[in-house]
Amino acid sequence: MTHSHHRTVFYVSDGTGITAENLGHSLISQFDNVHFEHITIPYIDSEEKANAAVTQINQTASKSGHRPIIFATLVAEEVRKIMATAKGLYMDVFNTFIGPLEKELKAHSSYTIGRGHGLPDETRYRARIEAIDFTLSTDDGNNTHRYSRAEIILIGVSRCGKTPTSLYLAMQRGILVANYPLTEDDLQHSELPKPLREHKNKLFGLTIDPMRLHEIRNKRRPDSHYAEVNHCQNEVRQAERWFSEYRIPFLNTTTLSIEEIATKILAQRRLKHGHFDY
Amino acid sequence: MTHSHHRTVFYVSDGTGITAENLGHSLISQFDNVHFEHITIPYIDSEEKANAAVTQINQTASKSGHRPIIFATLVAEEVRKIMATAKGLYMDVFNTFIGPLEKELKAHSSYTIGRGHGLPDETRYRARIEAIDFTLSTDDGNNTHRYSRAEIILIGVSRCGKTPTSLYLAMQRGILVANYPLTEDDLQHSELPKPLREHKNKLFGLTIDPMRLHEIRNKRRPDSHYAEVNHCQNEVRQAERWFSEYRIPFLNTTTLSIEEIATKILAQRRLKHGHFDY
Repeated sequence: MTHSHHRTVFYVSDGTGITAENLGHSLISQFDNVHFEHITIPYIDSEEKANAAVTQINQTASKSGHRPIIFATLVAEEVRKIMATAKGLYMDVFNTFIGPLEKELKAHSSYTIGRGHGLPDETRYRARIEAIDFTLSTDDGNNTHRYSRAEIILIGVSRCGKTPTSLYLAMQRGILVANYPLTEDDLQHSELPKPLREHKNKLFGLTIDPMRLHEIRNKRRPDSHYAEVNHCQNEVRQAERWFSEYRIPFLNTTTLSIEEIATKILAQRRLKHGHFDY
Repeated sequence: MTHSHHRTVFYVSDGTGITAENLGHSLISQFDNVHFEHITIPYIDSEEKANAAVTQINQTASKSGHRPIIFATLVAEEVRKIMATAKGLYMDVFNTFIGPLEKELKAHSSYTIGRGHGLPDETRYRARIEAIDFTLSTDDGNNTHRYSRAEIILIGVSRCGKTPTSLYLAMQRGILVANYPLTEDDLQHSELPKPLREHKNKLFGLTIDPMRLHEIRNKRRPDSHYAEVNHCQNEVRQAERWFSEYRIPFLNTTTLSIEEIATKILAQRRLKHGHFDY
């Protein structure tokens, strides 16, 4: 990595900065040969704070000898004007799109600060908390008597991604997701475990490359029976056999991020946005 | 809600669509008087899929009698060109910013699809999974012997937001966050519980308006001692007394979203991005 390919990226927002971070990360991930350093400056909601942020950015510019990149999601005009004076490439994310939207909707935006993740919408907040509670209480095959309330039940062998995916769907989409591990014991039977058969239409299978599974398990419990290549292969084979026998939709998680697994499950289940009415 | 204030918003992406959703939600939340319906179309990574998406959008346009709004995060030029023909307000999120970035970085973007949440970066993936495992195992005061590994220990009375915040920080930032409930029993003692005293520098307090706490608890366990107004007031008062006595930084969560609580904790702890090197 040469010095000339180093850049600092600032995410400046009057709210949490999460929208600016998400967009900025997606964009700069397209530039492979640059090493980026990331600094988020949240809650810039006054001219005073904007001036302090400009000072910080300008100091970085002179120290590093490179122009920083700035992704800004700022609503108030006075604050935006100050930020635009920073010595960097200024990407005014909100302002770029708010004009066309106002014209299209024939309405003025309310210029309210930090809306994206602010003012917790009561319905959305409750849905998230309820879903997180449900998912925690039904993690790892617990409380199967609650499956009548579940919207999705993820099944698969241990360490194929069920718990992180369940929590992500609950937290980010407000969906009641249970998960059930297909253990060696379960897999020796010819039939799916009873609580799963009773809710077959809610099941979604996760599977994984057996060698990858072996690696993950071996880090967790080195040289255990649980982590043996053969054992991993057998478990995965039997789980996939059930998926096809019972016509359970399933997904191979080996090369997918948590967000990708979640998106693909929702697309298949046609639960595209969870229950959030933004 | 009049018919004329109804609009459909499409989020079209070659990846999960999460970046488009985040930005779009932030922007349209500025328009109070419009009722928006949301449709995400992920994984549009071929001309064929792009044509199908255009058809879907155009059908919505004729059915509803309104031009849909389209937020697109698409990398491939052929796909973008097709999407731009859709009968709607087309917001080309990536293309708007990628040009200035290429010029600034004197580099061509790699035009790689779905980078934002794709290609699971091995380090990031492991950090998330490890943090989620840690946070689950130390939720609700469990396994306090693991506190030496914790980076943050959230403390507060039951139902003030500890668990959702812990899980959010673990999942989205890869931070090892434990949480410990200050129970009636704990609060009757004059000193903080021992495992907390031993890790005082990792503690962060959450508090909440007692009347709001009463509401939340009353929904969970109606007419219980646990939900009584008096009881909630006493618990909150004693918890806040400890926060000030032991000089524990704390935050009132009453009107905050999970993202806001997380952002404010990180700002205070100067752990601005978690450990993710994007």
